[in-house]
Amino acid sequence: MGSTIERESGGDGVGGGVKTTRAVVMEADDLRVVNACVAIGVGVALKWGVGCPAALEPQAWNLLSIFVSTVTGLVLKPMPIGAWAFGALTVALSTKTLTFVQGLSAITNEVVWLIVVTGFFARAFIKTGFGDRLALLFVSVAGHTTLSLAYGFQVAEALLSPAMPSTTARAAGVFVPVIKSLDKRTREYLIGQQIQGTSPTSTFLLSGAAQNFLAMQIALASGIPFSNPFNAWFVAASVPALVSLLATPMCVFMLDPPGLNETPEAPLAAAQRLSELGPLSSIEKKMVLSLSITVFLWVFGVQLGISAVVSAMIGMCFMLMFGVLSWDEALGQKGSWDTLIWFAVLVGFSGQLNAMGVVGWLSGFVSNYLVAQNLGMWGMFGALHCFYFFLHYFFASQSAHVGALYPAFLTLLLAAGVPPPLAALSLAFNTNNMGGLTHYASGQAAVYYGSGEISLRKLWKQGLYMSAVNFAIYGTVGMAWWKVIGLY
Amino acid sequence: MGSTIERESGGDGVGGGVKTTRAVVMEADDLRVVNACVAIGVGVALKWGVGCPAALEPQAWNLLSIFVSTVTGLVLKPMPIGAWAFGALTVALSTKTLTFVQGLSAITNEVVWLIVVTGFFARAFIKTGFGDRLALLFVSVAGHTTLSLAYGFQVAEALLSPAMPSTTARAAGVFVPVIKSLDKRTREYLIGQQIQGTSPTSTFLLSGAAQNFLAMQIALASGIPFSNPFNAWFVAASVPALVSLLATPMCVFMLDPPGLNETPEAPLAAAQRLSELGPLSSIEKKMVLSLSITVFLWVFGVQLGISAVVSAMIGMCFMLMFGVLSWDEALGQKGSWDTLIWFAVLVGFSGQLNAMGVVGWLSGFVSNYLVAQNLGMWGMFGALHCFYFFLHYFFASQSAHVGALYPAFLTLLLAAGVPPPLAALSLAFNTNNMGGLTHYASGQAAVYYGSGEISLRKLWKQGLYMSAVNFAIYGTVGMAWWKVIGLY
Repeated sequence: MGSTIERESGGDGVGGGVKTTRAVVMEADDLRVVNACVAIGVGVALKWGVGCPAALEPQAWNLLSIFVSTVTGLVLKPMPIGAWAFGALTVALSTKTLTFVQGLSAITNEVVWLIVVTGFFARAFIKTGFGDRLALLFVSVAGHTTLSLAYGFQVAEALLSPAMPSTTARAAGVFVPVIKSLDKRTREYLIGQQIQGTSPTSTFLLSGAAQNFLAMQIALASGIPFSNPFNAWFVAASVPALVSLLATPMCVFMLDPPGLNETPEAPLAAAQRLSELGPLSSIEKKMVLSLSITVFLWVFGVQLGISAVVSAMIGMCFMLMFGVLSWDEALGQKGSWDTLIWFAVLVGFSGQLNAMGVVGWLSGFVSNYLVAQNLGMWGMFGALHCFYFFLHYFFASQSAHVGALYPAFLTLLLAAGVPPPLAALSLAFNTNNMGGLTHYASGQAAVYYGSGEISLRKLWKQGLYMSAVNFAIYGTVGMAWWKVIGLY
Repeated sequence: MGSTIERESGGDGVGGGVKTTRAVVMEADDLRVVNACVAIGVGVALKWGVGCPAALEPQAWNLLSIFVSTVTGLVLKPMPIGAWAFGALTVALSTKTLTFVQGLSAITNEVVWLIVVTGFFARAFIKTGFGDRLALLFVSVAGHTTLSLAYGFQVAEALLSPAMPSTTARAAGVFVPVIKSLDKRTREYLIGQQIQGTSPTSTFLLSGAAQNFLAMQIALASGIPFSNPFNAWFVAASVPALVSLLATPMCVFMLDPPGLNETPEAPLAAAQRLSELGPLSSIEKKMVLSLSITVFLWVFGVQLGISAVVSAMIGMCFMLMFGVLSWDEALGQKGSWDTLIWFAVLVGFSGQLNAMGVVGWLSGFVSNYLVAQNLGMWGMFGALHCFYFFLHYFFASQSAHVGALYPAFLTLLLAAGVPPPLAALSLAFNTNNMGGLTHYASGQAAVYYGSGEISLRKLWKQGLYMSAVNFAIYGTVGMAWWKVIGLY
């Protein structure tokens, strides 16, 4: 267990173990040279072609160049993304753009470890067959078509969100294992739609996602009065989020249809197989018990001061003790370690971009530009929302985005004359719609992408067109509803 | 690549992928209940039986109790040590003894990541066959007996130490891969002897290990004059370290003999096979090139400001680019991830014990006790050295030990009337002898233990008897030599 080196050899004599006959050693083929050159070229062009503006330290400009190359590489995929992120970190460290502790700072981030530990859970779901059972349950209820199944998942997401306020935990603890148990031809669609579908489900309630609290806190601290923040949030969010919830599965279905949709006989067949499965096996019961402890803590942990990641770690300890999972099986979850590396590198980079003032410089740049355009109140409203949204390409966490940009953009909205409650809430809702923009946009996106079922190209495309759809919904239905309830 | 969940399934119909027939699922069997109860019992007894002394915060006492349970568990092995450390961290976090960031603080430690990355190298050594080749070279030169091979490794260690000042890098980059290529029956002895044998080789030169510089720096800062620290160190260290270097392979050989020793025909056979192997293969050449870059940076990195871990990361990037190793193969190195978890947890715990004042309280306790005994100068000299040494059971890094305890113990030695140069140097040499006390005593011990070749029981036993041997050597030969060169 845990051997650093895995091959065994035996023989006679001190040197007897040394094998001289060896199989032809396969060289790995991870590198696509042209794509690597393009990705690196973009950063090089920024570094030496554009050059560092006076307002920034050269080091900050270096980091931005490295970050842009990194992100370009995440799209062009010159190497597996973990390897690419590892390389980017190596460049940042060896050019002394970042110190080791700065570069690795995000590795103590709770969301990163929540992803690692729930990745172990996923293994247990698969191993015990409990994931299959849950999937059969879903199919027996809503499996007439892949589309109806997607709506079933959306409803489940919305119902779970008040209980499990961590979007990452919902993704890794429920939806990824279930979807992985379904037909291969449906998975890419379902995973893609879940990434986008988490936006409305996390918008409904103030407690739907961590960044919601943060935004509301900043709004209240800026003196915007909400006598009952929870209600004000829910009332304003309800109508546009509901429309978005209904539109998302259909939009993704029309633009990126699944390989298989109509399966009228599936629910009955699933119910039949479910009854054949019989009651929970011993290991399934232990798994359900361990998971129940975690879910209990996800629901009530806030009162006990137990965070989402510690809840997951407690459940993992029970799985280890009960023998649901061995430590060796956990260590073999390559996906967990892969995400640990690439997500931590990106979260670290984006945190340092913020700390070095690059994000502030970018948003100052935007605001100066917009003020110079003389757009009027509604013009500013639209433009600020757009910029606020697309700056998320530079962020690997919605909470970090709120922390870095929400105060500045809120101030700009107020300065443009937007009524305070409208400014505060619309900006907070907008943050929720970013979670599916990229695969590093949020913890849940990283988890869904980590399932290996969706290509980067498709994920980014869906992030882009669904952002347009959401802008349309919030810009029409949302604005009308907010007028009705008197937000402006 | 990087899929969080690894099983594939296919079928027809939305639910068609759900398999109803499953193999009997194996429950894992990681937990040994009695041992777990004993390990936990020790901590519980400390927490509620002994109770927190007035000088410490209850939180600090909690952490000490958890740490003692953790370490007891590392010896009794109620679970795989990674799982046990994971559980200990979970307890520390859920009892709010540590915050998440405190608990994970050591995960940004450079030595931890040096171990992870050099763990990837080890895979490349094995995969390309280059480890076999190096092993054959060693055997062809010194492989008449396992004991002579051990002496060969000792000489190689001593010769490499000025070039590669990181003991961890020497262990992971050279000796573990080579030993893993040797006969199974010789490996436990060779690994055990390397762990102990690193003590003298890192003592010879001021540049032999990171903690040496730190100790010398503190000594100079306390006003102890060394006109040429490098020479003073080497002259004082040379004789006792040489005796220890010669004694270590023999002592371990006598007390824990290898399963195979006499192999008079091995060197010739190895030379023969080496010639059959022919020149380096293409992938071996790429491996050697990548490794040479790293070794070059290990040697000259100090001048360039490139640390050992960044040097290793650069070499790893080349291996990925050249296709020596795929990212997937790297992610599959369970040993790297295992060490990441358990070593980081231990380093974190011991760092926090220090930060919370537990280490200071323990050493104050010791010094009060000793002063009360009226031992006289040489009595104090011996007793302080013993306590300084065995407090290393609470440390997961020699540098941390020097940082936390060297100044206090140096002051106590001087107060007892020990001549300053003798006090400073003997205490610094003593630190080097701790590296093999436990499997978490140092980076190299963690790496050697990670090879999976030696049992914890044997490692701890060897650590204990070799500490007695080293005390005897430094107390007789060392003291005599230091008298000759006029240190007292």
